[in-house]
Amino acid sequence: MADYNESPEEITKATKDYVMQQTMLRIKDPKVSLDFYENVLGMTLLGKYDFPSMEFTLYFLGYESPASEKSDKENTEWVFRRPALIELTHNWGSEKDDNFAGYHNGNEDPRGFGHIGISVPDVYAACERFSKYDVDFVKKPDDGSMKGLAFIKDPDGYWIEIFSAKGIADIIHAQ
Amino acid sequence: MADYNESPEEITKATKDYVMQQTMLRIKDPKVSLDFYENVLGMTLLGKYDFPSMEFTLYFLGYESPASEKSDKENTEWVFRRPALIELTHNWGSEKDDNFAGYHNGNEDPRGFGHIGISVPDVYAACERFSKYDVDFVKKPDDGSMKGLAFIKDPDGYWIEIFSAKGIADIIHAQ
Repeated sequence: MADYNESPEEITKATKDYVMQQTMLRIKDPKVSLDFYENVLGMTLLGKYDFPSMEFTLYFLGYESPASEKSDKENTEWVFRRPALIELTHNWGSEKDDNFAGYHNGNEDPRGFGHIGISVPDVYAACERFSKYDVDFVKKPDDGSMKGLAFIKDPDGYWIEIFSAKGIADIIHAQ
Repeated sequence: MADYNESPEEITKATKDYVMQQTMLRIKDPKVSLDFYENVLGMTLLGKYDFPSMEFTLYFLGYESPASEKSDKENTEWVFRRPALIELTHNWGSEKDDNFAGYHNGNEDPRGFGHIGISVPDVYAACERFSKYDVDFVKKPDDGSMKGLAFIKDPDGYWIEIFSAKGIADIIHAQ
């Protein structure tokens, strides 16, 4: 990129304390999505931020215990330093708009974003439980040639890969 | 969802050790994207996995030191337990296909995925450095009403929010 160059040491220094903090997905209905991410996937709601003038709300979830700082503002700072959070953006009104066409998951044309992925200890146990919640499957663990990994859909149709570290390593190193 | 219900304790137990591990984005040209994610954003390439029969390669990057397990397979397992990684998917050939239309970033119709977001200590310093690399900006830190946060584009046009925890907390709690 450009003619600008830095040594590895300069890059490390310049990007020190950078955190891959969030993956943002637009959602139609927060009630439905929070039920899914909190109860089915077991994430914790760490922050909810309303922007009334722009009519949207942001929900941050992840595999963390809630913030316990001294003030609301310190809690917010804490949230925005946590890695690996999901940011759900709700533009007010979509949940009751019968003409709302839904969001695009990126896996049909035009393609782009593919999925988020959750590493779990036991894919079969996880998927058996998801089935009890009537979660939609794109791929069940034993479908197709890649055994032991699954894809489910969140309420807006975004794909979520469910895999175990050991299962993925078995697939990759069996090639 | 469905009629299935679990207590909070049952949910916690069933989803124990779940890790939000990856966000997958399709890329046109790994050479260009690796330069961006490694050198501009300062991530480390933790794993590269070729799937010759399906003609694609996966690249996993994050803010971690590389794996140092005993075997390739153990390294792979280690990678797939790390939280907050970016998974770049390269379908072979797109980098030299003049008719390749490019990937969709989800922020024009049809919308869906919005962005990934990186928490940095100093947004202005980060953006001044990105400018030296000729990074494309969607929003510079002082554009618009939300001062102190920026959006840049990766080589495929995916949006990346650049913010500091303190700056975001100032915006949210000034409302």
